Amino acid sequence: MTTAYNQIAGQSVERLAALSDGIFAFAMTLLALDLRVPALEAIHNEHDLWHGLTALSPRLIMYMMSFLTLGIFWVGQQTQLNHLERSNIRLSWIHIVFLFFVTIMPFSTALLAEFTVYRTALLAYWLNILCLGAVLYASWGYATRSGLVKDDIVPEVPAAIKRRIVMAQSSYAFGVLLCVFGTYWSIAFIVLVQLYYALAPRLPK
Amino acid sequence: MTTAYNQIAGQSVERLAALSDGIFAFAMTLLALDLRVPALEAIHNEHDLWHGLTALSPRLIMYMMSFLTLGIFWVGQQTQLNHLERSNIRLSWIHIVFLFFVTIMPFSTALLAEFTVYRTALLAYWLNILCLGAVLYASWGYATRSGLVKDDIVPEVPAAIKRRIVMAQSSYAFGVLLCVFGTYWSIAFIVLVQLYYALAPRLPK
Amino acid sequence: MTTAYNQIAGQSVERLAALSDGIFAFAMTLLALDLRVPALEAIHNEHDLWHGLTALSPRLIMYMMSFLTLGIFWVGQQTQLNHLERSNIRLSWIHIVFLFFVTIMPFSTALLAEFTVYRTALLAYWLNILCLGAVLYASWGYATRSGLVKDDIVPEVPAAIKRRIVMAQSSYAFGVLLCVFGTYWSIAFIVLVQLYYALAPRLPK
Amino acid sequence: MTTAYNQIAGQSVERLAALSDGIFAFAMTLLALDLRVPALEAIHNEHDLWHGLTALSPRLIMYMMSFLTLGIFWVGQQTQLNHLERSNIRLSWIHIVFLFFVTIMPFSTALLAEFTVYRTALLAYWLNILCLGAVLYASWGYATRSGLVKDDIVPEVPAAIKRRIVMAQSSYAFGVLLCVFGTYWSIAFIVLVQLYYALAPRLPK
Repeated sequence: MTTAYNQIAGQSVERLAALSDGIFAFAMTLLALDLRVPALEAIHNEHDLWHGLTALSPRLIMYMMSFLTLGIFWVGQQTQLNHLERSNIRLSWIHIVFLFFVTIMPFSTALLAEFTVYRTALLAYWLNILCLGAVLYASWGYATRSGLVKDDIVPEVPAAIKRRIVMAQSSYAFGVLLCVFGTYWSIAFIVLVQLYYALAPRLPK
Repeated sequence: MTTAYNQIAGQSVERLAALSDGIFAFAMTLLALDLRVPALEAIHNEHDLWHGLTALSPRLIMYMMSFLTLGIFWVGQQTQLNHLERSNIRLSWIHIVFLFFVTIMPFSTALLAEFTVYRTALLAYWLNILCLGAVLYASWGYATRSGLVKDDIVPEVPAAIKRRIVMAQSSYAFGVLLCVFGTYWSIAFIVLVQLYYALAPRLPK
Repeated sequence: MTTAYNQIAGQSVERLAALSDGIFAFAMTLLALDLRVPALEAIHNEHDLWHGLTALSPRLIMYMMSFLTLGIFWVGQQTQLNHLERSNIRLSWIHIVFLFFVTIMPFSTALLAEFTVYRTALLAYWLNILCLGAVLYASWGYATRSGLVKDDIVPEVPAAIKRRIVMAQSSYAFGVLLCVFGTYWSIAFIVLVQLYYALAPRLPK
Repeated sequence: MTTAYNQIAGQSVERLAALSDGIFAFAMTLLALDLRVPALEAIHNEHDLWHGLTALSPRLIMYMMSFLTLGIFWVGQQTQLNHLERSNIRLSWIHIVFLFFVTIMPFSTALLAEFTVYRTALLAYWLNILCLGAVLYASWGYATRSGLVKDDIVPEVPAAIKRRIVMAQSSYAFGVLLCVFGTYWSIAFIVLVQLYYALAPRLPK
């Protein structure tokens, strides 16, 4: 009986994509809510305001880092969904779990922005990224095993998608290890990795 | 005259699905707003931060429970809409009422997270879930009676959709009854039911 | 030159519908943010919590009223967009102005919920509804005059759409006039009108 | 290897449009969060409330200005996407960067609303608009150079799109220069420019 329901539920890739776009859009915009305008009382001239804004720059960098992270995972999820012929209820639930970790991202970002020097905050942030990567990896594995992928897919694509996730996650893990020298080293390395993934296509091959 | 307008209004299943995806996406992300970063003043070392984060875990569990709830209802509504040939204004309004209860969910969740030991909070939470189920049940009943469902639907599907809602709601109601022993029993049972619905397809049949 | 650009810009009804669904979804969910969980310090037993929740009911009614309002206007805008063959930049801008008044709705609602007995708050709320109706009326007038409407439209439809807006706005205006007896009379009347519009199709004709 | 992945990633214009609509919808609605209802304690009669509301009008004007700004850029981006045959990962990333500056807009607006008389706030606001324009210009340049544009495009269109951005940005830059006389002059000029862009098609040619 449950099986009967499950055979008809969650089959629309379009609706899954629409829910995902909504959650990504909302999470990406929510990140910016943490950028707060300086308090009116503390500002008495242009100079104060300028200082107030420059004091926001570490927070702005955290924000950019998380925006890049979500951008990378949005591209990654999109690439998978574009290659799907159809969805099923299991795959829908894998992606709902993926979206759960997307909605946690503003929290992880705020935590790291507030407690940048603490390794615990960095580990929590990394754990969030790790879960995103692991679930995305699992979703592709399930989709390929279950014959949900389009027939006309180029043979190299499935492996390329998996390799991409493993490589990115390896870089993040290495970045986190750098926190033995200090969390700023980790953050700087992660930002560089992300810029590489965002800009890579522009580099000469 | 009203009838004339009503015959032309609210016919697009796609727009209804798009509004629904938007509202689900926002409600699911809003839930996470309740996860607040520990206060900067209270944290003096890694140990404090670690404790601050573990202190958040009950709230995180509430959040996961509500995320699962909304995920289950999103899948349920999606399954219905996928089987519709077209909508009409009455069905649109039934779904707008359904979406109303979706937007209340972040409130019910925050209430239960704040007052976990109070049965009143649990009942309010359950009432929210009950309304979601009741309206979804009504919407399917109306759609089948009014000939809005696609012709090629498998004969067993309409009954399976209704049975699913009744079974799920029965489980929730039973879970709430467990609050005579304490609200934690209810919450634990409800989480288990939800995990079953999310994971069921993975279990051996 | 400006004309050249304007001839190619803003032609997609789908994108306009998608932006509208997003803004409606968000505004409808934001309304609920005003429902705040009672303060933990003030609650010592089930009885306190029960009273705290019943004290929220006027705010909940305001919220439902605004949710209905936005639902009515969403259906109204959707009906128009469904009948469009294409859009153009002028029509896009008319709808962007319409969406502006949608985004103001959470503010108007919070204002009326906070200052229910003040006519100024009621007038501000009504002004918001009036602007929504006026812009929607203008958008349909422009669409019909400019030949943007689908050819296969039933001849009675254009007039029915306009009549609907005029009738609804007349009811709202009458409701606001009732504030000479007190703002509660106005609010009760407006809620009744809205329920009529949402439920009308269910009544015998 | 990276190249292999990049050849299959980010190709969907529809998903890019959906993410964009979601982020625009959210950012446009978030702007209004800054309109706060007057404090209950400060209001004792209709007169107080009336004054409280008129005191909000500068903030409302800022809000309208930013809503217009986002509306203009939404139309601008939409026009580009509508003319694309397909996307690729580089173009997706250019648009993700564009969306980053969209999500910053509520912050820039709040900053200018709070510190209207400070040139630093005006410059920050303008910088935000400048980045939006520059990235949109770059995205069109890249799309045309890389053959992503539809074949049936009218020959004058590509140049018209670029000219439009340059003209608008020149007007904004001139407006900001007016801040040597005072920031209010700049704001008034920018509002006029935006009204022109929104209303232009209505003016006689």
